Amino acid sequence: MTDELGGERILGVLGGMGPLASAHFMTRLTLLTQAETDQAHIPAVLWSDPRVPDRTRALAGGPSPLPALLRGMGVLRAAGAGAIVIPCNTAHGWYDELAIGAGVPVLHIVDTAIAALRRLGGAPGMAVGVLGTQATLSMRLYQDRLEAQGWTAIVPDAVEMRELVTPAIGLVKANRVDEAFAPLAEMANRLARRGARSVVLGCTEIPLAILSGPADGIAVPLVDTIDALALAAIAWAQGGVA
Amino acid sequence: MTDELGGERILGVLGGMGPLASAHFMTRLTLLTQAETDQAHIPAVLWSDPRVPDRTRALAGGPSPLPALLRGMGVLRAAGAGAIVIPCNTAHGWYDELAIGAGVPVLHIVDTAIAALRRLGGAPGMAVGVLGTQATLSMRLYQDRLEAQGWTAIVPDAVEMRELVTPAIGLVKANRVDEAFAPLAEMANRLARRGARSVVLGCTEIPLAILSGPADGIAVPLVDTIDALALAAIAWAQGGVA
Repeated sequence: MTDELGGERILGVLGGMGPLASAHFMTRLTLLTQAETDQAHIPAVLWSDPRVPDRTRALAGGPSPLPALLRGMGVLRAAGAGAIVIPCNTAHGWYDELAIGAGVPVLHIVDTAIAALRRLGGAPGMAVGVLGTQATLSMRLYQDRLEAQGWTAIVPDAVEMRELVTPAIGLVKANRVDEAFAPLAEMANRLARRGARSVVLGCTEIPLAILSGPADGIAVPLVDTIDALALAAIAWAQGGVA
Repeated sequence: MTDELGGERILGVLGGMGPLASAHFMTRLTLLTQAETDQAHIPAVLWSDPRVPDRTRALAGGPSPLPALLRGMGVLRAAGAGAIVIPCNTAHGWYDELAIGAGVPVLHIVDTAIAALRRLGGAPGMAVGVLGTQATLSMRLYQDRLEAQGWTAIVPDAVEMRELVTPAIGLVKANRVDEAFAPLAEMANRLARRGARSVVLGCTEIPLAILSGPADGIAVPLVDTIDALALAAIAWAQGGVA
């Protein structure tokens, strides 16, 4: 991949949050790229640092993930990354600090999810369900960005987060992916019954679990934020504007 | 992960050959690690460069992959990698040049496959089938290392390579994984009929295809070299000797 100046377009991936989601992002990046040979695929460098302090705990007063994230950004830039993606929704709570001084575009996962909603035929005015970590919802990463553009966001309540969503995300991080399907599917259907015409899987662990179960068990189209981010990265690598 | 000196144990992964195999390696590395939280997983940096010149063509007089591979080694070392794995069997034809001056251990995929054969109950004296690219077989990467330790290697003949194995590997690289199952399963069974008690999938694209089909269609145990390499990397990261 070269840009209009003949330079390289190497994609940087700030990952490890969790490591399974990062690996899955790399797989989807490859499978969603139109390519007949290795050489037509996108050069990429993945910094997978699972030691980054837990993002949800940081908001509750725990150690900040920012120093570890900035270190990863430095590794990716030194490796030649020309744009960076972060396959972790919650980490976007630190997006502004990461984007400042990155020196290269950092593609925002919520923007790529909104682009995916539009590809599904959605438009402002539509109600959209959002599943995510407690931190993603508390920071209003999706609600604010959706509502600023005229969409309505519907999210789980506190009890649902505690009983369904948070435990399911923990199961994926513990490699118990199969067990996480039922509570997440139940929650997606509850959001649909409250009016959501589509549900954004706004935590990169959630698609891993939802994809392990029967797709016909869920009443509305799902937006997989791993795929949305991968498609935006491919567009950048193939010469589009970030 | 820290070593006995309190330093970090960051795994370097020289990948992109092909990119799907690298991504799959990252997934298997994660799933094979005993961990209940993100933070217990192994920090890793993946350099996925699909532009590395084709290894099989290089042996037929095409451009050498070595400069691109050495560049990747440099990126991984600069990122802090304390050991390096290469999830591509054929690239091990350049192992000696890569290992010299690496400054850190480079785990050899054939050694990790032999360790896997032993875990399956195998021992020197046993006949082992090997599937791989034409280059891997021509360079005798498996045959020499197996035979030096007293095992017998059985490989496809030239016609079988041309009609079954080489086209199947191309299908995986073109994201047509499902179609690659039948020819590879057929070839594994032919090696079993010739006396192989186990078959090593000595090309990282092959397990991707074999795993997409029915396991009971193959008569002997298979050694997945992606998993073998991941297990050796985990042992290193957790403090073992490389």
